[in-house]
Amino acid sequence: MKTSTTLPAAPTPTAADLKITEITITPIAFSDPPLLNAVGVHEPLVHRVIIEVRTANGLLGLGECAGGQSRLENLAVGANAIKGLGVFDTSVMEQLITGALDPSLSSFEKAAVFSAFEVAALDIQGHATGRTVSELLGGTVRDEVPFSAYLFYKWAEHPALDGKPAITDEWGEALDPAGLVRQAQKMIGEYGFKSIKLKGGVFPPAQEIEAIKALREAFPKLPLRLDPNTAWTVETSQWVARETDGLLEYLEDPTPGLEGMGEVAAAASMPLATNMCVVAFDHIKRSVELDSVQVILGDHHYWGGLRHTRELGTLCQTFGIGLSMHSNSHLGISLAAMVHVAAATPALTYACDTHYPWNGHNDVVKPGALRFVDGSVRVPTGTGLGVELDRDKLAELHQQYLDAKMTARDDTGYMQRFMPEYTADLPRW
Amino acid sequence: MKTSTTLPAAPTPTAADLKITEITITPIAFSDPPLLNAVGVHEPLVHRVIIEVRTANGLLGLGECAGGQSRLENLAVGANAIKGLGVFDTSVMEQLITGALDPSLSSFEKAAVFSAFEVAALDIQGHATGRTVSELLGGTVRDEVPFSAYLFYKWAEHPALDGKPAITDEWGEALDPAGLVRQAQKMIGEYGFKSIKLKGGVFPPAQEIEAIKALREAFPKLPLRLDPNTAWTVETSQWVARETDGLLEYLEDPTPGLEGMGEVAAAASMPLATNMCVVAFDHIKRSVELDSVQVILGDHHYWGGLRHTRELGTLCQTFGIGLSMHSNSHLGISLAAMVHVAAATPALTYACDTHYPWNGHNDVVKPGALRFVDGSVRVPTGTGLGVELDRDKLAELHQQYLDAKMTARDDTGYMQRFMPEYTADLPRW
Repeated sequence: MKTSTTLPAAPTPTAADLKITEITITPIAFSDPPLLNAVGVHEPLVHRVIIEVRTANGLLGLGECAGGQSRLENLAVGANAIKGLGVFDTSVMEQLITGALDPSLSSFEKAAVFSAFEVAALDIQGHATGRTVSELLGGTVRDEVPFSAYLFYKWAEHPALDGKPAITDEWGEALDPAGLVRQAQKMIGEYGFKSIKLKGGVFPPAQEIEAIKALREAFPKLPLRLDPNTAWTVETSQWVARETDGLLEYLEDPTPGLEGMGEVAAAASMPLATNMCVVAFDHIKRSVELDSVQVILGDHHYWGGLRHTRELGTLCQTFGIGLSMHSNSHLGISLAAMVHVAAATPALTYACDTHYPWNGHNDVVKPGALRFVDGSVRVPTGTGLGVELDRDKLAELHQQYLDAKMTARDDTGYMQRFMPEYTADLPRW
Repeated sequence: MKTSTTLPAAPTPTAADLKITEITITPIAFSDPPLLNAVGVHEPLVHRVIIEVRTANGLLGLGECAGGQSRLENLAVGANAIKGLGVFDTSVMEQLITGALDPSLSSFEKAAVFSAFEVAALDIQGHATGRTVSELLGGTVRDEVPFSAYLFYKWAEHPALDGKPAITDEWGEALDPAGLVRQAQKMIGEYGFKSIKLKGGVFPPAQEIEAIKALREAFPKLPLRLDPNTAWTVETSQWVARETDGLLEYLEDPTPGLEGMGEVAAAASMPLATNMCVVAFDHIKRSVELDSVQVILGDHHYWGGLRHTRELGTLCQTFGIGLSMHSNSHLGISLAAMVHVAAATPALTYACDTHYPWNGHNDVVKPGALRFVDGSVRVPTGTGLGVELDRDKLAELHQQYLDAKMTARDDTGYMQRFMPEYTADLPRW
């Protein structure tokens, strides 16, 4: 037997070096095309928040999450609760943040606030140890993370409003099957995606079924998904499931609630997926009892960070539930975090969603680390998340936020500026 | 806004530095008192295996697991499968080991083999990054991990056999309530435990109920557990549950199988715990459907390592299942790993089991890092697991293994040397 290598001397950096000394929370706004969904249309600007966490020894960790006035207030509470904490203490971080937030907040909101800081802490852990975030999560089981082409019905432009001119974009109009096929061709041509998701719930379901059939014809080999965001009744959902039998790899959130989803699932040939009725660990027990969903769209922003997202994967595997990944409008810090956790989660069974083709040109991270090749993003190889902040861009988007004076996302209110009779009452059909 | 700290230069140690170059698997045997259980009596020697994993840059990681001839063969297959792998790639390590092992092996055995190497890899990760294993798992939510006093019915000595003399120990005989109370007083006096577990299934249940009542009288404030290792029928278990109403914090594995446990659970006032009917993620779905168990005794040796044990905690929390921790006869590498993962698992709801009072004097780790104070073990602060191998002791215990020529644990066969009519058919009562 060999002589033992003795334990190394005191670790560097020390625990004191890695204490959190400063947190900067920067609300930003970036441009977004007029994408239609079941509750309205995307506004010209998306709110988002960039988190910077700094340690005593000057390391910087990045986080990103959805914006809005109440979220900003909750993030400030969270930031205040974790000053002085070591960046390796993410479980205590969760307890401190959860304990500091208003107890009446949902477990979902508490998890979302923690997530932004957990990602930043893991980013710093990576810088401090010379490892990638995916290595800190157990290492990658895939070097590239596949994403799907995320199609939206959309207007050709944000209409002129309040004396401001119309805003066009490179994507053009998509209000019928032909428009969606054109959109898919452009997006797949540029990004190489190997599967397609259509955001539905916009037009009567028969029209959206026609769109799916047109996409199937144009892309015979690509898996297709349809997500009407609970725009349909149970009966309508069951009918759509019959009409799309053999066409969809999964049908996402056709109808509201675990009970309704369970009724649809019992009748549908394809798996049902969700990012609406199961969005926190609290929701899983009942969902399993009812067999409401067969695929969960994980999202580290929703599920309390990267470690809990990997844990969600093990839980899904345990109960025979598939795992995909949900996206909101986002930039590169979120994309990098998604890529690291998706690469480190063996249970991932589907290509992930991303809005990056719609919003990536606004990115606050410097180019180079994140690139789509054949629809996949290679795991960044730099330490931590492997992305670096573009401070000029951050300043520009922060100024845009200040100028916009928005307080919360309001797809419905924006739609009503053009269609005063519009309501977001769901299910609609 | 501040200037960004730029990303550090290339990480040290490099990926090549941290590749696994050498694995040493050392079977050992160490002395064990004649502890009684539902299938016989502990033999004079326990088999166990010490794993040493070395990297290109000379770092050493330690693992420990149960022994036996088939386990040794499976460990050799696992070791062969992961040569050249980086120590941060534990998810790939699991895939490689699972894929290399005989497909007919149980998921339990595959997870057990992987676990020994995962712990060693995390030990090295800690040495390479200057962090503790618990930090790599999300940080500690408790600085000290509480354990329970693990009482056994026992003989005063291993009887003289095959021309060898009898072997006595410091613990004396415990074959009735008074003997168990004496044992508890000695063990709690030395270790300070704040809860008590009795290994039952040895005597008719009425006698074991009397023992529980005697322990309750002697230790009015300490939570009590009783574990007959499935020695009872459903009806007997229900009767014991009634007779011990208000006396037990949980009743562990009274009867075999998820169905039987579910029937007992429906009638019992206390939670049922298990380390027998739910020992792998595969078993959880059915257990949840039947509400068979309300507490799972996690064990990183069973559940595929430290990360999966933390994941088990999240899963237990999600389904309202309590989490405790199981133990087999073990030494300090296993204890250190247990302490790190228990400290890093928020979901842990009960004091953990340990055989360390029975076997710790045989330890292969150098003294100092692991110490019981008031029944708890403080999380070691050295890098990795924070323990160091005593090579003289390892050599001594390996020689003892070679001399003993044992191939598998056989509590039943050993009992039959003294009671030829003894059978291990369960349930017995």
